[in-house]
Amino acid sequence: MVRILGLDPSLSSTGWAVIDAENNRLRYVADGFIKTDSKLAIEERLALLYKTLCEVIETYHPHEASIEIIFLNENPQSTLKLSMARGVVVLAPGMYQIPLYEYEATKVKKATVGTGTALKSQVETMVKVLLPGVKPKNNDSSDALAIAITHAHFRTANKIFSKIK
Amino acid sequence: MVRILGLDPSLSSTGWAVIDAENNRLRYVADGFIKTDSKLAIEERLALLYKTLCEVIETYHPHEASIEIIFLNENPQSTLKLSMARGVVVLAPGMYQIPLYEYEATKVKKATVGTGTALKSQVETMVKVLLPGVKPKNNDSSDALAIAITHAHFRTANKIFSKIK
Repeated sequence: MVRILGLDPSLSSTGWAVIDAENNRLRYVADGFIKTDSKLAIEERLALLYKTLCEVIETYHPHEASIEIIFLNENPQSTLKLSMARGVVVLAPGMYQIPLYEYEATKVKKATVGTGTALKSQVETMVKVLLPGVKPKNNDSSDALAIAITHAHFRTANKIFSKIK
Repeated sequence: MVRILGLDPSLSSTGWAVIDAENNRLRYVADGFIKTDSKLAIEERLALLYKTLCEVIETYHPHEASIEIIFLNENPQSTLKLSMARGVVVLAPGMYQIPLYEYEATKVKKATVGTGTALKSQVETMVKVLLPGVKPKNNDSSDALAIAITHAHFRTANKIFSKIK
């Protein structure tokens, strides 16, 4: 059995999810989201994000972590904030020596719906089908569940080819 | 007296510097740089960067921190890596509740050389003039000294107007 942490970073609301995978069986463990108040200074928002992610890791002890490959926004300020949050989100597994794997959005769609051109709403539907009875806390934690499922799906091949640098 | 931590982030080599400022007097305390091996996974590089910055903070106990405003690179991958490193560098003072202040490059030139259009080499020269006897460890720590000096110069006005969000 491998316990997987899925991460969907953003400065305003980062989604996280934990699932267990054993062969082809998936089991939901937990999901949630971390909102940070835009009235706080950025170093305070990042500290809140980091502390909460460390608590999630210390509560659930995942073995591996996964994250979607980032798409850089047209707006440089949005790109900067998203990337800074991503740095802190990536740091958390790094500090606990949990290996991190990265997947393109098309891989997430392929692993959940079966086709790389699926709609976002189809991914959300399939998360609930693949983890029966689960009600994701919000869209961000649903995205985090999808990226965790994706890693469960691809992890053997990914371990060899796609470790992010 | 206020002790200031200057930060010049990048994934490959982050510069840091500590100075004390009392009225118009500046005193050099320490400087250094944190290199991370590009052969490591990004979460390992960010963890090394973060741990070392935490050690710097716990060694020197700065009261305030300063950083230059980022310029987004034309290359999206470079922008992403720089911004992720910046997120982790900003996190460190955030975790110790050290307020962080941000300055444009022109302000750094103005505070060190006296004109916003100064050359980078002039800034490096003036760092040594303003902190007599100091030999910065490398260019990155020299840049970190310059941003610390800039905060010493502008901190009263900055405290009111420029706290970063």
